[in-house]
Amino acid sequence: LISKLPLVGTTIFTKMSALAVEKGAINLSQGFPDFPPDARLLERASQAILTGNNQYSPMTGLPILREAIAGLIERHYDRKVNAFSEITVTSGASEAIFDAIAALVHDGDEVILFDPAYDLYEPAVTLAGGVCRRVTLSAPEFRPDWQAFSELLSDKTRLVLINTPHNPTGSCWLAEDLESLWQVIASRDIYVLSDEVYEFIHFSESAVSVHKHTELSKRSLVVSSFGKSFHLTGWKVGYIVAPAELTVELRKVHQFVSFCTATPLQQALAEHLIALPEASTGLAAFYQQKRDVLRNALVGSRFTLLPCEGTYFQLLDYSQISDLDDVAFCEWLIDQVGVAAIPVSVFYQQPPKDQRIIRLCFAKEESTLLEAARRLSEL
Amino acid sequence: LISKLPLVGTTIFTKMSALAVEKGAINLSQGFPDFPPDARLLERASQAILTGNNQYSPMTGLPILREAIAGLIERHYDRKVNAFSEITVTSGASEAIFDAIAALVHDGDEVILFDPAYDLYEPAVTLAGGVCRRVTLSAPEFRPDWQAFSELLSDKTRLVLINTPHNPTGSCWLAEDLESLWQVIASRDIYVLSDEVYEFIHFSESAVSVHKHTELSKRSLVVSSFGKSFHLTGWKVGYIVAPAELTVELRKVHQFVSFCTATPLQQALAEHLIALPEASTGLAAFYQQKRDVLRNALVGSRFTLLPCEGTYFQLLDYSQISDLDDVAFCEWLIDQVGVAAIPVSVFYQQPPKDQRIIRLCFAKEESTLLEAARRLSEL
Ligand SMILES: CSCCC(=O)C(=O)O
Ligand SMILES: CSCCC(=O)C(=O)O
Repeated sequence: LISKLPLVGTTIFTKMSALAVEKGAINLSQGFPDFPPDARLLERASQAILTGNNQYSPMTGLPILREAIAGLIERHYDRKVNAFSEITVTSGASEAIFDAIAALVHDGDEVILFDPAYDLYEPAVTLAGGVCRRVTLSAPEFRPDWQAFSELLSDKTRLVLINTPHNPTGSCWLAEDLESLWQVIASRDIYVLSDEVYEFIHFSESAVSVHKHTELSKRSLVVSSFGKSFHLTGWKVGYIVAPAELTVELRKVHQFVSFCTATPLQQALAEHLIALPEASTGLAAFYQQKRDVLRNALVGSRFTLLPCEGTYFQLLDYSQISDLDDVAFCEWLIDQVGVAAIPVSVFYQQPPKDQRIIRLCFAKEESTLLEAARRLSEL
Repeated sequence: LISKLPLVGTTIFTKMSALAVEKGAINLSQGFPDFPPDARLLERASQAILTGNNQYSPMTGLPILREAIAGLIERHYDRKVNAFSEITVTSGASEAIFDAIAALVHDGDEVILFDPAYDLYEPAVTLAGGVCRRVTLSAPEFRPDWQAFSELLSDKTRLVLINTPHNPTGSCWLAEDLESLWQVIASRDIYVLSDEVYEFIHFSESAVSVHKHTELSKRSLVVSSFGKSFHLTGWKVGYIVAPAELTVELRKVHQFVSFCTATPLQQALAEHLIALPEASTGLAAFYQQKRDVLRNALVGSRFTLLPCEGTYFQLLDYSQISDLDDVAFCEWLIDQVGVAAIPVSVFYQQPPKDQRIIRLCFAKEESTLLEAARRLSEL
């Protein structure tokens, strides 16, 4: 039995969440809320199940949901997308990203991504027969270096994978980044896969979306997540927006990977978006408050807080506390301090030497955040 | 934009269901029930959502569900499987099959399958870089030819894809088929992927499962579907059982394709299996009654009924009615007779010349079946 992914183990999220449960630690590792979603949305899902939305949806997603998504995109980004030919509902953002890579990356193609990078990108590229080329983002700002990016381009470059707001660093791209990206790829046969699952969670007006860049969006697949935007990571409903000719190829894969996504949950989300079109508008303020609770509670500790412009993740530098590498430090933290975090080095192919940074998830009740910060402040 | 699946269009299920809706035809094409699932199961799902099972499940599936699945397998097949290392919950059986192929089939590997074959097998093999070799099953019995099978084996054969009860033909394998398969592959480095999503829907005692063949099961991945077994095709919860060393590789793919499956639906299924351990026992009798309603109502028509030993599909030969090929005949049926069926030729790489067979789904209310049969009997 020869592994096709010999370098892949169990994801760090599974490992750290399991350790946290085992040791009874406060789990700020894997990104998921510990508070309930909107009760009205749950009520809608309950009703959708009881009233009989339990058979296959169309492969592309329920029409009513795709229409509602088109409305959401128009309201938020002032972009018109065609609900029938440009939006596909998937079993979470993961499936959307996997499908897009499987559909577009051919054997030997090169994919450029920015390190640290979310852990599913590379295995998906590997399974498609592609090769990843990496631009390293450096602490503390994690800004893309367009010179380094240009140098990685080759005739084999097929896809650029971007992610803003960025997991795990919490940095956000600016309009000038999208323009730089566009300038470099405009004349080439290259597509962009933009992972924007934290699209509504950013704390500065300057954060951007590919949806806002007209030319770039015509070459891009943009991925969103209801799990992130509605505090329902366990529903596994996401979607991907792409020009019709890319959507055709994407759906060829999607229809064989999962065919469709839980119908009653799609129905509930559609009704919720229709009833409360502004539902995601308050999300940034909601999470900014949580971010600030965590940050303020850590002021005066021996951790150094890195900037956090978006996502529900806060990076901490622990150089003043320990010489351990970040994986060992996270294991020690769970065991000795009762707080589970994510080591940032696992998101790099070549982690920067002597970088000592961990990631905390602040999608948690204020009391959870305060107790975790109290424990961490004792170090 | 060069397609990776140039030969793939929209699945026949999407096409025919859409046509059926457009023309207002009775939809016996895509396989899904038109009656409701057990109300107690729906109530459990509603409660699971309202009481807060809305965040990620473990990547492998909820432990309580995997334990319940192990119990189901032990009761039905007298096979003990390890809930933690051998069972993985997936976003429907489709994802399970896709993941297994992606995990095991390397570039250039050969996969043997039996034509007619469910439409997702080949594209999944193609995306993995493999090549399909096909044994043709012939009407009306569709029995596997082990001589032909042996001749297809080569040093490159990595996987054999089997499906019993068989979609679209409704035939079931016998113990001697599994034994023949085992004899041919025992001494070789070949795995078996067994699509058994209709495992509880067979109408003869002689139908078998890989779960019952001790040696073969140690080399096999066996796929099941709650959608099929509990009348919930829209929940998209399936699972795959495989020896630990195969499961490790499978999960490497699964964790990046969908990570996990709707948590509240998993929770509801687990509670249901625990409360009603015999829930799937009556399924065969339930569907046998529907099969017989449909068959009896077509006696005296100009269609020839083929044998149906399992699944919820009935094949009809229409040679006495029309010379049209089966795709054209199905379009004509929708348009002129108001009944949607599935042409069987689309499941073959090389459809047998002059074969005129369509598939009807009988997972429908008796009144639906009788009205469809009435319309078909007028031809
Ligand atoms: C799919 S589990 C990981 C959740 C997540 O996106 C994160 O913690 O970064
Ligand atoms: C995933 S849609 C197809 C349903 C089905 O299995 C069939 O009709 O054969």
